[in-house]
Amino acid sequence: MIEVGIIGASGYTGGELLRIISRHSSFRAVWATSRQYAGKAVEEVFPYLRDFTSLVLSAPGLDRIPEGIKAVLVALPHTEAMEVVPSLLEKGIKVVDLSADYRLADPAVYGRWYGHQHTSPALLEEAVYGLPEIHRERISSARLVANPGCYPTAVILALAPLAKRGLIGESGVVVDAKSGVSGAGRSLKVDSLFCEAHEGLTPYLAGRHRHIPEMEQELKGVSGTSVRLTFTPHLVPMNRGLLATTYLEVSAGAGLNEIEKAFGEDYKGEPFVKVAPVGILPAVQEVTGTNLCRIGFTDDPRGKRLILVSVIDNLIKGASGQAVHNLNLMFGLPETSGLEGPGLFP
Amino acid sequence: MIEVGIIGASGYTGGELLRIISRHSSFRAVWATSRQYAGKAVEEVFPYLRDFTSLVLSAPGLDRIPEGIKAVLVALPHTEAMEVVPSLLEKGIKVVDLSADYRLADPAVYGRWYGHQHTSPALLEEAVYGLPEIHRERISSARLVANPGCYPTAVILALAPLAKRGLIGESGVVVDAKSGVSGAGRSLKVDSLFCEAHEGLTPYLAGRHRHIPEMEQELKGVSGTSVRLTFTPHLVPMNRGLLATTYLEVSAGAGLNEIEKAFGEDYKGEPFVKVAPVGILPAVQEVTGTNLCRIGFTDDPRGKRLILVSVIDNLIKGASGQAVHNLNLMFGLPETSGLEGPGLFP
Amino acid sequence: MIEVGIIGASGYTGGELLRIISRHSSFRAVWATSRQYAGKAVEEVFPYLRDFTSLVLSAPGLDRIPEGIKAVLVALPHTEAMEVVPSLLEKGIKVVDLSADYRLADPAVYGRWYGHQHTSPALLEEAVYGLPEIHRERISSARLVANPGCYPTAVILALAPLAKRGLIGESGVVVDAKSGVSGAGRSLKVDSLFCEAHEGLTPYLAGRHRHIPEMEQELKGVSGTSVRLTFTPHLVPMNRGLLATTYLEVSAGAGLNEIEKAFGEDYKGEPFVKVAPVGILPAVQEVTGTNLCRIGFTDDPRGKRLILVSVIDNLIKGASGQAVHNLNLMFGLPETSGLEGPGLFP
Amino acid sequence: MIEVGIIGASGYTGGELLRIISRHSSFRAVWATSRQYAGKAVEEVFPYLRDFTSLVLSAPGLDRIPEGIKAVLVALPHTEAMEVVPSLLEKGIKVVDLSADYRLADPAVYGRWYGHQHTSPALLEEAVYGLPEIHRERISSARLVANPGCYPTAVILALAPLAKRGLIGESGVVVDAKSGVSGAGRSLKVDSLFCEAHEGLTPYLAGRHRHIPEMEQELKGVSGTSVRLTFTPHLVPMNRGLLATTYLEVSAGAGLNEIEKAFGEDYKGEPFVKVAPVGILPAVQEVTGTNLCRIGFTDDPRGKRLILVSVIDNLIKGASGQAVHNLNLMFGLPETSGLEGPGLFP
Repeated sequence: MIEVGIIGASGYTGGELLRIISRHSSFRAVWATSRQYAGKAVEEVFPYLRDFTSLVLSAPGLDRIPEGIKAVLVALPHTEAMEVVPSLLEKGIKVVDLSADYRLADPAVYGRWYGHQHTSPALLEEAVYGLPEIHRERISSARLVANPGCYPTAVILALAPLAKRGLIGESGVVVDAKSGVSGAGRSLKVDSLFCEAHEGLTPYLAGRHRHIPEMEQELKGVSGTSVRLTFTPHLVPMNRGLLATTYLEVSAGAGLNEIEKAFGEDYKGEPFVKVAPVGILPAVQEVTGTNLCRIGFTDDPRGKRLILVSVIDNLIKGASGQAVHNLNLMFGLPETSGLEGPGLFP
Repeated sequence: MIEVGIIGASGYTGGELLRIISRHSSFRAVWATSRQYAGKAVEEVFPYLRDFTSLVLSAPGLDRIPEGIKAVLVALPHTEAMEVVPSLLEKGIKVVDLSADYRLADPAVYGRWYGHQHTSPALLEEAVYGLPEIHRERISSARLVANPGCYPTAVILALAPLAKRGLIGESGVVVDAKSGVSGAGRSLKVDSLFCEAHEGLTPYLAGRHRHIPEMEQELKGVSGTSVRLTFTPHLVPMNRGLLATTYLEVSAGAGLNEIEKAFGEDYKGEPFVKVAPVGILPAVQEVTGTNLCRIGFTDDPRGKRLILVSVIDNLIKGASGQAVHNLNLMFGLPETSGLEGPGLFP
Repeated sequence: MIEVGIIGASGYTGGELLRIISRHSSFRAVWATSRQYAGKAVEEVFPYLRDFTSLVLSAPGLDRIPEGIKAVLVALPHTEAMEVVPSLLEKGIKVVDLSADYRLADPAVYGRWYGHQHTSPALLEEAVYGLPEIHRERISSARLVANPGCYPTAVILALAPLAKRGLIGESGVVVDAKSGVSGAGRSLKVDSLFCEAHEGLTPYLAGRHRHIPEMEQELKGVSGTSVRLTFTPHLVPMNRGLLATTYLEVSAGAGLNEIEKAFGEDYKGEPFVKVAPVGILPAVQEVTGTNLCRIGFTDDPRGKRLILVSVIDNLIKGASGQAVHNLNLMFGLPETSGLEGPGLFP
Repeated sequence: MIEVGIIGASGYTGGELLRIISRHSSFRAVWATSRQYAGKAVEEVFPYLRDFTSLVLSAPGLDRIPEGIKAVLVALPHTEAMEVVPSLLEKGIKVVDLSADYRLADPAVYGRWYGHQHTSPALLEEAVYGLPEIHRERISSARLVANPGCYPTAVILALAPLAKRGLIGESGVVVDAKSGVSGAGRSLKVDSLFCEAHEGLTPYLAGRHRHIPEMEQELKGVSGTSVRLTFTPHLVPMNRGLLATTYLEVSAGAGLNEIEKAFGEDYKGEPFVKVAPVGILPAVQEVTGTNLCRIGFTDDPRGKRLILVSVIDNLIKGASGQAVHNLNLMFGLPETSGLEGPGLFP
């Protein structure tokens, strides 16, 4: 068993990492930290993990990191991650960072969107954006993987095959995204209270969400040119799930067949990307509990637009499952280890 | 008290009509029909109305309509409404029809979208589209009002001030809409089961929903030119509420100030349309239980697009409340009668 | 209009008071305080109240209380309420206190359950327990009304007619209660987060909830003898609503007819208590949005137990609606003012 | 791989059987029937199973059952199951029946509660009640296992250790149970519609639910004497989960220590029953997605009652997971095969 640690284990992505790793045949979590709950057993913080782990949460602090740990998953808020990642690497530990700190290659872009100067800009060159479908090779040999945001995962996977082939028209792309409340994390905010979100539906940060530069960076990476994105996320009253509805004009009169062919070529062998037949649009409840991204598309008979729908479980493919997928790659394990099987419905 | 009847009273819009009218100072419901529940007391079908009405549901059949009824609200599915509306008018009864049967002025468009030939096309000319903010005058003197669909209500109110002023760019409009499950009605369908919709989020009829021609008709009505709409609705796990996020390029470099001015001019005195300050986007839970449409807008700093958000309670402003608003106009009553007050939160 | 103030207006019961009073024909809220949100407009804290009130939240502090206020509704946590109530009374202002501070007549019982010594024990004698169905007369002439807890409201109303007639058997009563999440208030607690409560169901404080002494006090008050109560509340994933299922052995072989007669006698004229026919049990969704308590009962054919179900909207009859009912009584207004009409379904 | 079939595969328990078996290392589903959806691929009926099974649903009809099938899971409504079970047994196929048809040993009791005469009463003697914690030995050698109801699973597991030791007092037991909506199945009923159940809470069949005789039979089986049960189930707005709160007076002054000891003795080695420390009560969200039954208990300091809380996932331990557990036993496989791992939270 490869021993791994989790820094920031008491949030929802932390719990999800513990859950996935508890079923993994090659990894074993031997160290988990939490500033807020240090000294408590994991089962006190996550009663659903009682009888599945006997870990006790440690205070953060790399001086007490157990010998023998080969990899650490960092599930801290942005700016806090970059305080620990360099030291981990120095100790020869591989890192998957679930925060935004190493996702943007350009430290100036990071500074502009996150309002902080990057404290280890040199690592940005080395860090690999952890979307295996696009960066599989580089991830496999990486020391530091920057796990993508939940929205970018769903949006980039839906757009990359088109971007790569120059099929995105000049008028740009509208992405209307919807996420379950777990996307807001476990920290205490009025907007995350049950009564604020239940029987509600709330748009937020229209055109201004911090996941925008990630999407633009990666789409530019595959296409070679800038893609203009209008992005509005919404908070939906469900625990898990993320759905992105993407609208664009297709270049050069490409039809649905061509789109289908592009997806087929790029995702045929992908274990975690499933493209539905033309005209079938996936729903969130088809991926809950899985590491899958399901994609569907249709035309708009009234205009020239293509409508794409992509769905993921925001805590799995949008966070912790993808992190384990990256870890599998980094250690040369079968990609689907610990991530197999259908989800839970209803 | 003006006596009114409700045909099709056992669905959610029927119940909502009974509820609103029970609080109305000028209308009294004296007759309510239901094919399925004929002979049952309303309180058996809607236990929440126990102690608020002693009505017993009648079988449909205009031969038994009580004397003295001045208006009937028709809450039947499309094609069934046009079987009864002409007879009601012949009896001198005013009608607000909540179905789609009299919303589209052109019977050919109706036939194309609804798959049935219209059986009283002559009435289409007379019928007034019941969006008071646009057709107030004509509604006031109408015999037959076609109550708008829920999606068109939210979308047209958000776009009409722009359409009227030629501010909608040539690339057209993307409308990404989300509705609570009550929009699907009370009839028995697998997709409406609790376990299918809860913890789920489902796009449907992307680019193909029957509410599209209503929106196009009305927007063309105010603007004089066709507006190209890409429309995708989604089913959201909440009882009530509808949110439309609308994306468009504004013509001729008009800025947010101009948009604000347009909304201010058109909706200043409107009792049921409330426009938020620039940059503030409304959420569904701000209108639940009210006849309000709240509208907000912001720009997309990354592109030339305007982002509009409009929210309504689909059963009130999107159906039964708007029907009562229309009835108030048709009988010369204060517009807000029976529709006052804030909603319920949480 | 009678001018009133609300201390602690930014919680859910505060918002509900503002909502109900905004529709009230005799009261007008002219002052509302919030420690946390002082200086903000009510509409910033409760966007659903935008356009219905222009109040700005004041910092607490009785020195700045506006002249002319005749009554204050205190919606503070326990122990904080008793810091302001005596001063309000001294100023000649009538008070309805929604906290627990004046509900228990015996300061020793208060101390035992709430872990604080009571700082104005002399007022406990004067304070009237604000359950109008039991203390209507005393409420009408009271200066200080202690508004009941949500659970006690539902439980006492279900049991009082039986307790009064000595129909509660010696084996005592089991009360299994279930509440929507708004009962936990708007303060930031992990257990109140959407993702903790949604798709969940959590028992808490079994046999130990602070509402127990209220129930025992009032049932002893009507019966003359102690009633032994086993009480377990549960948190249910809904915004509003409270349902108490109560089990007891009926004394002396009284049958369902006798129970029905008892309820009929006690509640016949009550505007807000509705008893269903024998064997019909009410559901929470029959009272959401109303000040009603609906009660139903049935026997257990396998044993000698009676099963009672009582439902209320925890924020209305269980808190703010009942407070306004009390205020109506204290000012000699019609009891149902501001509290009329059916609720919202679905 | 042992080949198995599923009769009635398009309901929620059917889907859950398909999901669990798809992850099972020893069973393979090769035949699945559905009257309603015959001819459709499983993925059309359950889109979440797309890419995990290529099964097509067959019409029922045992003449076309594939050769080589060793066991069949019957997920039909009661009375329909007993039409097929005898023929399956005659073909030498082992059966786990998820309906109520073979749960009650006495055909007269079956007739009284289900309103039908039993058509294969001779099999009732042979059928084993499929609660492994109680009937493990007999299940291992059974041809026909009657899988328990969801409520009885949670209630019997909480009460059996007490019943066995004569600790249940003479006043009997009150069981207040709460279930998610999936317990009502996937058939079309108004009460199962999203809008009827969401933001609602509904008691039903108080004292009269058909799961009562199962509980009484099994508790009598372990204790030797009749146990008087008052049982009220409630419908809670969640997809999955079942919580039973059980109240009883303990015989002969047994304290919490004795209760703890009883649970410890009976469940120490059980893979799927987990007893919490004294005073800790489990919540539904701690077992969602697992085959676990978690049990907690506390005393009522105001009286002599014990309060027990038991929680299960109604579709897994309350139905399909327990069926697979039984199948594991019947084929001599490790008990936990296909049923390992923690659940999903949030």
